[in-house]
Amino acid sequence: MLSFENDYSEGAHEKILQRLIETNLEQLPGYGTDIYCARAAEKIKAACQCPEADVYFLAGGTQTNAIVIDSMLAPYEGVIAAVSGHINAHEAGAVEYTGHKVLPLSQRQGKLDPKELAKFLENFWADPNHEHMVFPGMVYLSWPTEYGTLYSRKELTEISEICRRFGIPLYLDGARLGYGLASPKADLTLPELAALCDAFYIGGTKVGALCGEAVVFTGQSTPPHFLTRIKQHGALPAKGRLLGIQFDTLFTDGLYFQISRHAIEMAGLLKAGLQKLGYSFYLDSPTNQQFVILDNQTLEALKGRVAVSFWEPLDETRTVVRFATSWATRKEDIETLMEILGPA
Amino acid sequence: MLSFENDYSEGAHEKILQRLIETNLEQLPGYGTDIYCARAAEKIKAACQCPEADVYFLAGGTQTNAIVIDSMLAPYEGVIAAVSGHINAHEAGAVEYTGHKVLPLSQRQGKLDPKELAKFLENFWADPNHEHMVFPGMVYLSWPTEYGTLYSRKELTEISEICRRFGIPLYLDGARLGYGLASPKADLTLPELAALCDAFYIGGTKVGALCGEAVVFTGQSTPPHFLTRIKQHGALPAKGRLLGIQFDTLFTDGLYFQISRHAIEMAGLLKAGLQKLGYSFYLDSPTNQQFVILDNQTLEALKGRVAVSFWEPLDETRTVVRFATSWATRKEDIETLMEILGPA
Amino acid sequence: MLSFENDYSEGAHEKILQRLIETNLEQLPGYGTDIYCARAAEKIKAACQCPEADVYFLAGGTQTNAIVIDSMLAPYEGVIAAVSGHINAHEAGAVEYTGHKVLPLSQRQGKLDPKELAKFLENFWADPNHEHMVFPGMVYLSWPTEYGTLYSRKELTEISEICRRFGIPLYLDGARLGYGLASPKADLTLPELAALCDAFYIGGTKVGALCGEAVVFTGQSTPPHFLTRIKQHGALPAKGRLLGIQFDTLFTDGLYFQISRHAIEMAGLLKAGLQKLGYSFYLDSPTNQQFVILDNQTLEALKGRVAVSFWEPLDETRTVVRFATSWATRKEDIETLMEILGPA
Amino acid sequence: MLSFENDYSEGAHEKILQRLIETNLEQLPGYGTDIYCARAAEKIKAACQCPEADVYFLAGGTQTNAIVIDSMLAPYEGVIAAVSGHINAHEAGAVEYTGHKVLPLSQRQGKLDPKELAKFLENFWADPNHEHMVFPGMVYLSWPTEYGTLYSRKELTEISEICRRFGIPLYLDGARLGYGLASPKADLTLPELAALCDAFYIGGTKVGALCGEAVVFTGQSTPPHFLTRIKQHGALPAKGRLLGIQFDTLFTDGLYFQISRHAIEMAGLLKAGLQKLGYSFYLDSPTNQQFVILDNQTLEALKGRVAVSFWEPLDETRTVVRFATSWATRKEDIETLMEILGPA
Repeated sequence: MLSFENDYSEGAHEKILQRLIETNLEQLPGYGTDIYCARAAEKIKAACQCPEADVYFLAGGTQTNAIVIDSMLAPYEGVIAAVSGHINAHEAGAVEYTGHKVLPLSQRQGKLDPKELAKFLENFWADPNHEHMVFPGMVYLSWPTEYGTLYSRKELTEISEICRRFGIPLYLDGARLGYGLASPKADLTLPELAALCDAFYIGGTKVGALCGEAVVFTGQSTPPHFLTRIKQHGALPAKGRLLGIQFDTLFTDGLYFQISRHAIEMAGLLKAGLQKLGYSFYLDSPTNQQFVILDNQTLEALKGRVAVSFWEPLDETRTVVRFATSWATRKEDIETLMEILGPA
Repeated sequence: MLSFENDYSEGAHEKILQRLIETNLEQLPGYGTDIYCARAAEKIKAACQCPEADVYFLAGGTQTNAIVIDSMLAPYEGVIAAVSGHINAHEAGAVEYTGHKVLPLSQRQGKLDPKELAKFLENFWADPNHEHMVFPGMVYLSWPTEYGTLYSRKELTEISEICRRFGIPLYLDGARLGYGLASPKADLTLPELAALCDAFYIGGTKVGALCGEAVVFTGQSTPPHFLTRIKQHGALPAKGRLLGIQFDTLFTDGLYFQISRHAIEMAGLLKAGLQKLGYSFYLDSPTNQQFVILDNQTLEALKGRVAVSFWEPLDETRTVVRFATSWATRKEDIETLMEILGPA
Repeated sequence: MLSFENDYSEGAHEKILQRLIETNLEQLPGYGTDIYCARAAEKIKAACQCPEADVYFLAGGTQTNAIVIDSMLAPYEGVIAAVSGHINAHEAGAVEYTGHKVLPLSQRQGKLDPKELAKFLENFWADPNHEHMVFPGMVYLSWPTEYGTLYSRKELTEISEICRRFGIPLYLDGARLGYGLASPKADLTLPELAALCDAFYIGGTKVGALCGEAVVFTGQSTPPHFLTRIKQHGALPAKGRLLGIQFDTLFTDGLYFQISRHAIEMAGLLKAGLQKLGYSFYLDSPTNQQFVILDNQTLEALKGRVAVSFWEPLDETRTVVRFATSWATRKEDIETLMEILGPA
Repeated sequence: MLSFENDYSEGAHEKILQRLIETNLEQLPGYGTDIYCARAAEKIKAACQCPEADVYFLAGGTQTNAIVIDSMLAPYEGVIAAVSGHINAHEAGAVEYTGHKVLPLSQRQGKLDPKELAKFLENFWADPNHEHMVFPGMVYLSWPTEYGTLYSRKELTEISEICRRFGIPLYLDGARLGYGLASPKADLTLPELAALCDAFYIGGTKVGALCGEAVVFTGQSTPPHFLTRIKQHGALPAKGRLLGIQFDTLFTDGLYFQISRHAIEMAGLLKAGLQKLGYSFYLDSPTNQQFVILDNQTLEALKGRVAVSFWEPLDETRTVVRFATSWATRKEDIETLMEILGPA
């Protein structure tokens, strides 16, 4: 069966597996203190042009969000996010489990509106009762968003400036960061993005790794004793090498960027093919996630032949589904998909 | 200075103080095991016509909400509330501090819409990804609401039925329960309300007590070892008598209902007076909280003479303020207020 | 029935009730912003000779411990306490509920050993794996202890110096502080004690108040946005006046100290009486709690006539029980007790 | 440099890597719903002779302990453990972070004493104040323990019976389970062990996997919605296949047991060699961790040549260190070690 269900259907890029084999019997110290973690961190700092950054490796996205948010917030603070933000909608309340409220603002195509954000913060501080409320202590956004969309440089700069004006950090969830950077619609480079954020993570799980996300604190923003916080959250791997080797490989010779571009090219083919066949899109996504409107009969007909992600019902007869490409998508699979789907 | 700022500006009803004095030197066991707590519980059960209920006494509203919600929810569940619900807006994230998400639905005049609630629950269970989401485990509503409004018997019945259909408890925040029951617009009695809820609390702090809220679990719904949960939350008073004696007094000879009616009569005078003077109301509240639109000059002129509660700015030149009456409001104060305000 | 079960069996000192009545109809702002809270804070700062202190009022001891400890600790820190410390043994895990470990050290007569404390801290920092452990972030002790004993000035100074050497605050649980200060064996004044601690609380519930504990941060140690932390813990009373008026009364004309002395005098009579009758003491307590060894027959015979606190079984035939005196104990009750008990 | 520092110094057994490569491009559903997780679960249930068990895969030991303990305990319960238990000493307070107290009992060679355990539980329930205390809700033990020792079948049976008598689950931390089962001193099989426990985990990280622990709920003990609890704790891997494939491999053709035996054989050689050279042992461990007393000069001389684990200082001149063997230890490394060490 063909699968466009998500961008984590396969294992890892072959170069990663090869490096795991090559290094397998090296005896390395545990808990992220090995040479591969150190090298990966250096390469990531270089790629971000952020020499003063601190880099940590964690296993997955929800884990990373919960730990970074919990560790950067004061106990009386919550985190602002779009209602559609992954932390608000699809992480089983992992942030609230750490005691912090997610403060939801409205979303448009998965994005926060800088004006609404500024207004929210102004209103909070102007409210004479704000000491009885959750303090907004951070802004969370995803890039690309859950809808595959991208904040422009202008939008991100605006949000970053609002955060700095109110003295709160900007944290960017980069589960699919590579796919954002590789999009022809992105008008931001990794160093520019790093300069606008206080913390972000570079997603590995969805971009060619078996598991792993690289957290970057861009400077002066690392929470004290962050390693102990990771341990306390049950997220410090004994064999930190597993993460270090993967990110060392991804950031050697630009592999991360190269495989991200491949996914975006495949998404371009997918999009063009679907458009040609007359399918409608729920919104215009410039990255590897494409949200397509299928009538329910078509959707039913795909069962057992093509796996896609259910997103939400559009109306009685139509459903929004997600097609995802990835570093592992093959051109021929897209061609087969078009044959199966046929004209809308 | 005249104060209509809130309904907790004075101490306690004189009968309560008198009983505290009369019983002061009786030696009583601690932690709510005294005879007054027992008597108060019996009287409350009788007033609710709910003989199988369990009644506990806590000190304040935020405390009560956090403990009841935390104790009734499973760890993977959150609580549904209107965005304007006190737990969502003005309790400093006390519910999230216990690890549970507040799942906000839209509000209209402070009330949840039963249709939206049913849709939300249906969508949750229909969503194939719901195991990655916070389970809706309870419905919270306030009666009267934060805007002084009341769910009708029909509305509350609808919500109760939805809860039962989905197997989740309905919890009602009755910080101002007396003022709701005493409202001429209320079409529900206390026993009827009790029959529709799985848990609720009868507010004392805002209805004549120095402090205290009586939690009623209406049957089979008491969380196991609830006393230990209270202790764990730091809310088990050594001198439980302080709460027991107050509620015993409030529920002797209908005092609670009598003083609530007084507040509602005073609110009626206030409302009529303001209307006569030409003031506009933000909404039509049938209880002791009246939300009035004042132009900012008028508001400024009140400073130092009349205390009111800032609610929210309406626009550039006008502000919504709250006037609250209570068991302690005097008719002459309302008359003085009218003189001070003069025509709109 | 006669009760020596605890020091919170009665209501409040009559002067407190009187002041509650006198101030009852004054309209005061909520949440501890009233004039009585302010006055009480000033009087307490004066009594502590600690003008730069911050004073907050909370309702009970477990609540106070949980909030102060949670707010002063970093999230990766725990609190050191004697195994017999109230927070470790009898608060239903309220500290752990806030996410922090209690790090128990051995106790002797309820007290921490300064040498063991210093060794524990040295070992922690010397351990190459300490980043995988809970950081010791505070020392908690009770004064008087749960066994009625007192740290001497020398002992408390030693502990305070250890804390300062390791850069962690010393927090003192003063649920029965008055009874400690009033003991003829105490070689410390309140200002001296305040100078040795970073935070402590002055117990009201057990020393003449209906409820209430006054937290004193002795300078530069107040957690940021402490009021919001209190609210988040569900412990911010709407009618803060109830606490303010009580402490204002207790710290007017030395009432707190005067009623504490009374309890200590009564404890002296009790102790002398029991000794004369030939009873044995479990340990030598210089304060209002007396731990007495009774054979089980004697204990059985008291039932229905004299209430005492079960402490622990000593052996098969004997039990340790606690007799507590308080501000409310009457001389004639002690005499009656002696008659009932008769020779050991 | 030679390393006997721990049993997680290398990557993974080569068969695991080989299977990761073979399956790499298969498109599999996420979050543990793939065929390899299902197969691994079946094989583990067969190996445990426990067909009604539920099996889940998590990434690491601290994570597993925190999630299982938090999910099996009621909110008012804590977990009993030896003071030396990993959860009490070396997990950065991860259990307390979830709100639960670790109730420490004394240890002897890393083991709980069944008599002390029974006494503790009896005392708790006999204590009239137990509602003010943390309820003991589970027994945690590690097998092998942190000192490499093993509970005998008799000891484990005794503890299991105590747990059942008091109605609380027995949970066994099997981070090194394979090394325990492979020990010639073990008088328990895996099915026998499974029958005595309500939950346990089979450690992969230290026994040949890159990462991963298999949690076994032996029947009727799976916490409701455990997958959501895992997600809430940030521990649900998108690519569950990584864990499934590894455990499927480990439980195919007895690989797990075979590589465990190898480590135990190597530990036997190490032990015999050290004894022959005249070294003293801190205690007699029958598993892969050997605790050896070195004088500090010898320890110093090893630096840069042989890595071992610092355990604790024995006295001024001697230190307890740990030598660990594993599935990856080579006979020639042990021989080299003996040459480097020379006679004691």
